[in-house]
Amino acid sequence: MNIEMIRAAAKRLDGHARRTPLLNSSFLDDIAGRRVWVKPECLQHTGSFKFRGAWSALSALDPATRAKGVIAFSSGNHAQGVALAAKRHGVSAVIIMPADSPALKLANTRAYGAEVITYDRATEDRDAIGAKLSQERGLTLIKPFDEPQVIAGQGSCGLEIAAQASERGIENADVIACCGGGGLTSGIALALEADAPGLRARTAEPEGFDDVARSLASGRIERNAQLSGNICDAIVTPQPGDITFPIMHRLCGAGLVVTEDEVLQAMAHAWNRLKIVVEPGGAVALAAALFHGGEIAGDDVIVVVSGGNVDMPIFARALETLT
Amino acid sequence: MNIEMIRAAAKRLDGHARRTPLLNSSFLDDIAGRRVWVKPECLQHTGSFKFRGAWSALSALDPATRAKGVIAFSSGNHAQGVALAAKRHGVSAVIIMPADSPALKLANTRAYGAEVITYDRATEDRDAIGAKLSQERGLTLIKPFDEPQVIAGQGSCGLEIAAQASERGIENADVIACCGGGGLTSGIALALEADAPGLRARTAEPEGFDDVARSLASGRIERNAQLSGNICDAIVTPQPGDITFPIMHRLCGAGLVVTEDEVLQAMAHAWNRLKIVVEPGGAVALAAALFHGGEIAGDDVIVVVSGGNVDMPIFARALETLT
Repeated sequence: MNIEMIRAAAKRLDGHARRTPLLNSSFLDDIAGRRVWVKPECLQHTGSFKFRGAWSALSALDPATRAKGVIAFSSGNHAQGVALAAKRHGVSAVIIMPADSPALKLANTRAYGAEVITYDRATEDRDAIGAKLSQERGLTLIKPFDEPQVIAGQGSCGLEIAAQASERGIENADVIACCGGGGLTSGIALALEADAPGLRARTAEPEGFDDVARSLASGRIERNAQLSGNICDAIVTPQPGDITFPIMHRLCGAGLVVTEDEVLQAMAHAWNRLKIVVEPGGAVALAAALFHGGEIAGDDVIVVVSGGNVDMPIFARALETLT
Repeated sequence: MNIEMIRAAAKRLDGHARRTPLLNSSFLDDIAGRRVWVKPECLQHTGSFKFRGAWSALSALDPATRAKGVIAFSSGNHAQGVALAAKRHGVSAVIIMPADSPALKLANTRAYGAEVITYDRATEDRDAIGAKLSQERGLTLIKPFDEPQVIAGQGSCGLEIAAQASERGIENADVIACCGGGGLTSGIALALEADAPGLRARTAEPEGFDDVARSLASGRIERNAQLSGNICDAIVTPQPGDITFPIMHRLCGAGLVVTEDEVLQAMAHAWNRLKIVVEPGGAVALAAALFHGGEIAGDDVIVVVSGGNVDMPIFARALETLT
């Protein structure tokens, strides 16, 4: 896993993924006490950054292997990314999703033409299910984060951040990513190390599902005690990856942890001030920037809003925090 | 009013206004029956395209005149655009707003540092109020649409559309703009005439406030019978402008008219499929593309989502249309 793989992935993504802008609002700056810059990956194809890694992985396969089809397991955003990347490559996709995934994510994954198989997040092992199906049908497994070409694709977001920060004269800032298994964070961390060494990758997670923050603190991979029961479905994973964690441990500062109420407020502020739609798991980095300023260094902070695939009831709950 | 003024405005806007992306979603294409491309000006500074015209007008003033301050009348989006452009130029702004403007627009205009004066939309003449104050205090009036430098600023959006369409190989399409007084539409129409002659500017308006559609049909300026009582507050104006109408009459096809329910549905689809927040007046063009396909020509349609400054109750009503 290295920066050259990220640059190669960025080239393969050119013309296929969107180069999302960098947004800001003086109203958010006032809340945070510093300038806040938002990379809205909710505006990416399929509504999350996951399309980057999926396209990177699919496009890196040799055509004969790819033609047999791919398989992925995902709480919903990787699912949609792989489903659309497969569709655009003209190959079939099987997606294994938790039965309690947001309805929108299940419906969209099917709408992109994928075959969806659901499982129980609390009692079944999605990796085992994936490996078995992959073997039986000759499909190539596209892992959600602990896979070099997926990390390379997510890293393209970090290359863009480095360039966009440089255009604005931002040379010293924390870059906070919403962190599940660490694919996005580790890709961004490697990209920043190469192209913007004054920018530091940080992770943000929801309270009670802070495996990465605890792993960064202890220096070894720690697991979450529970795997469901949080609104941030997109980033609830058992533990950081074997490939992603060493990268994060080497390059990231201490992990940030936010409350559910802070997540809902961040979603509402993004709606009100940036006019973007953010899902709970996509809002943890913004929540950290807005409400945990004491744990952040620098006059500027850059946050990745990682996705916007949210069902209406939870979105309505978020907007209620504005009243 | 000519293309050179638009190119000059675009240069003055460079580095100050955002170059908004061009978004799409296969789900929207399926509804519309053709490819739909969305220019999300809700992501512009202050949440609407109006910042373009305001910055253009302010930056075109000679410094001594500008230093005395500016005045504007607006239902809310021009207000915010002028307030922020004035703040960033370091000059004062007085903004005359309808008393029934959305709460968010009133609050934001004040938050950008402007002095806000409210009036009754049904019984008072905002032009008269503006002219009087302008004279008394030596302020320069920045009209909302019938002003060449404002039209030139809005036209920068059209230059971007021409370039972005060309990048995607779109050579023959309608470009639908949400239309109030016609500043955005006429600016875009002039930009397309110069840079993308295969693209045709069109207008979209809400039912009952279709002064532009009727004017385009009759060939002379027609007035709206009423001036309040519609959710599309941003684009309810008495009539097209003396400068904007001849441009629209020369360059635009027939005006499109959409219902309130279509507007609410378009807002919900934009939330669900593009992850952007759209206000009612900003959604009429998307509503026309999604639900009035029979009145549109070509395999592609480009729509400008002109703003996203919406209060929560009306946004909640829009999301309810998805259930």
